[in-house]
Amino acid sequence: MKLEEIYQLVETDLAKVRRQLDSVSEVDYPHLAEMLRHILAGGKGIRPALTLLVGKFYRYNLDLLLPMATGIELMHTATLVHDDAIDKSVVRRGRPTVNQVWGEERAVLLGDYLFARAGEFAAETGNLRVIILFSRTLQIISSGEIVQSDDAFKLEQTHDHYLERIASKTASLFSLSTTSGAILSGAPESSIKILKDYGFNLGVAFQIVDDILDFVGTEDELGKPIGSDLSQGTLTLPAMLLLEQYPEENPVKELFGNPDMPEKAKRAKINRAIEMVAGSPIAKQCYQVASGYCVQACLNLDRLPDKPSRQALRELADLVISRKK
Amino acid sequence: MKLEEIYQLVETDLAKVRRQLDSVSEVDYPHLAEMLRHILAGGKGIRPALTLLVGKFYRYNLDLLLPMATGIELMHTATLVHDDAIDKSVVRRGRPTVNQVWGEERAVLLGDYLFARAGEFAAETGNLRVIILFSRTLQIISSGEIVQSDDAFKLEQTHDHYLERIASKTASLFSLSTTSGAILSGAPESSIKILKDYGFNLGVAFQIVDDILDFVGTEDELGKPIGSDLSQGTLTLPAMLLLEQYPEENPVKELFGNPDMPEKAKRAKINRAIEMVAGSPIAKQCYQVASGYCVQACLNLDRLPDKPSRQALRELADLVISRKK
Repeated sequence: MKLEEIYQLVETDLAKVRRQLDSVSEVDYPHLAEMLRHILAGGKGIRPALTLLVGKFYRYNLDLLLPMATGIELMHTATLVHDDAIDKSVVRRGRPTVNQVWGEERAVLLGDYLFARAGEFAAETGNLRVIILFSRTLQIISSGEIVQSDDAFKLEQTHDHYLERIASKTASLFSLSTTSGAILSGAPESSIKILKDYGFNLGVAFQIVDDILDFVGTEDELGKPIGSDLSQGTLTLPAMLLLEQYPEENPVKELFGNPDMPEKAKRAKINRAIEMVAGSPIAKQCYQVASGYCVQACLNLDRLPDKPSRQALRELADLVISRKK
Repeated sequence: MKLEEIYQLVETDLAKVRRQLDSVSEVDYPHLAEMLRHILAGGKGIRPALTLLVGKFYRYNLDLLLPMATGIELMHTATLVHDDAIDKSVVRRGRPTVNQVWGEERAVLLGDYLFARAGEFAAETGNLRVIILFSRTLQIISSGEIVQSDDAFKLEQTHDHYLERIASKTASLFSLSTTSGAILSGAPESSIKILKDYGFNLGVAFQIVDDILDFVGTEDELGKPIGSDLSQGTLTLPAMLLLEQYPEENPVKELFGNPDMPEKAKRAKINRAIEMVAGSPIAKQCYQVASGYCVQACLNLDRLPDKPSRQALRELADLVISRKK
C-alpha cells in the first residue's frame, strides 16, 4: 500500500483540509497573503490524515474533524517556520524558507500568526477537551525545542534523553492528531487511549526515521540538505550510535568539540559522519528501533472496531519506516 | 486617583492573577522555569486589571475572569518576548531581555511556550466566543507587527496608517481585555460594544503616549532606552509631526534615508530628534491626539450601570495620559 492508497479512505476530506489551508492565505494584507501562500504549499499531510482516519472508527463528524485536522497541520507548519528561523535554514520542502526570503523577524511573526490561526481552527470544534490538548501540545513542543537548543553540541546524552526529546518535539503532535480524532468522533475512553498511544509511538518512529534520513537520504528526496541535524549540533540516534561504535577519531566528537570551526571544515566532518554511517550497520540498527515503535503503535489496534481505518493505520506504520522523504 | 487606587477595586483578585502568573513558572525543566521566572516578574498589569474592572458591571465571576485576565497578560508577555528578539532589544522593564540573556532562539521558543500557555488559560473559561476572540487578537497583533516590520525606515506614511498600525499592535489587546470581561460577566450586547470601544480607544491612546514617552521619557522611568522606535525605524506620531514641521535638515529624514549609518551617527540623529521634539510643541500635540481617544473611550460609559468600575474606567483614561512609565 502506498501513502496515496491509505489516504484514499479519507481522500475527499483531505482535499477539504487542503482547501481550508488554502483559504488561510486569503487575507487583506498582500505581503502576509504572499508569505502564507508560500508556506502553505506542500506538506505530506500525514497529521491531518491521521485525524481523519481515526475519526472513521466511531461517529465520523466532518464538521469537527475538518477544523481540527486543519488546525493541526497549521500548528505543524508554524513550528517549521520558527524552527527554520532559529536554525537559519535556507531550504525546506525544496523551496527557500520564509526566513531566507523575508528575513528572520518576519518568520517569527508569521509563525505567531499561524499559531493563532491554528488555535482558532481548534476552537471551532467547540470541544474544550481538544482545545486544551491543543494548547498543551504546543507547550510540550516548544519546551522540547528549548531542551534541544540547550543540548546543542553536547556529547554526553543518553538514548533515553534523545527519546524524550523527540517525544516532545514530534510524537506529541502525532498523538494530538489521533487523540483529537478519537475524542471528536465520540470514541470511548479505552479507544482514545489506544489511539493516543498509536499516535505517540508512530510519531517517535517517524522522527527516528527522519533522523536516519538526515544521514542516508538525498537532498532531492528530502527537500532540504542532509546532515542538517549535525550542523545544528543536534545529536540524533544515528549520531549517538556512531559515537558509541567509533569512539576514536570520530567526526561527530570533533565537530561537537569545536562547534565554531570554519564552515568548510564543519561540512567535511559532517560528510565524513555520513560516509561512516553509510558504511556501517547504524542505519539498519536505527530502523530496528523505529520498527519497534511501530510494532508498539499497532499492538492494541485489534481492540478497535474492525473498520478499514484499522488496516490503514497498520499500513501507515509500515510506510513510516519505508518512506524515503 | 493613582493607578493603585483604581486597582483597589480589584486588588485582591489582581493579586490572584499575579499568583497564577507565578505558578506558570512551576515547570519541571529548570531552564524553562528560570526563563519564565525572569520574564514573568514585573509588568503594570493594566490589561488584566481592565478585564477584572469590566467584570464588575454585571455578574462578576472570578472563575472565568481569573483565567482570562491571566491569559491576556501572558499573551502580552509573549508578544514582548518576540518583539525584543526581533528588535534585538537588550533591556525591558529595567532588566535584560530574554534574547539578551539566553539568545534569540530561546526567546522565540519561550514566546511560543507563553502563547500556548496563554491559550490554555483562555480555554479554561470554557467560553468559545472569548476563546475565538483570543486567537483572532493574536492574528491581528502578529499581522500588525508584520506591517510595522514592512514599514520600517519608510518616510512616506500617513497618520491613518500609523493609527491602523497601533490599533493592531496595541488597541486590539486592550479591546480583548474589556470585551472578554464583559462577555464573561454576562453583559448585554450593547454594553459589550461600549466596553469593546472603550478598550480599543484606550489602547490607541495608551500607544500614542508610549510613543511620546519614547521621546520625552527617561530610561529610568521606562525601564528601556529612549529613542528605541527611531532606532528600529518605526515612524511614530511624534516622528511624523517632526518630519512635517521641520521638513529641512530633519534628523528622522536623514536617519531613515540611511538606515545603515554607523551606530554612533545613528545615535546622534536620534538624540537630535529627541532634542527637537523637546523644544517644540510636538509632544503636546500628540498628547492632544491621545486625549481625544480617551474622550472617545469614555463617551458612552454613562450608558453602563452606575458601579464604582465606571468611575475607575474614567480615571484610568486620565491616568493613561498622565503616566510617566
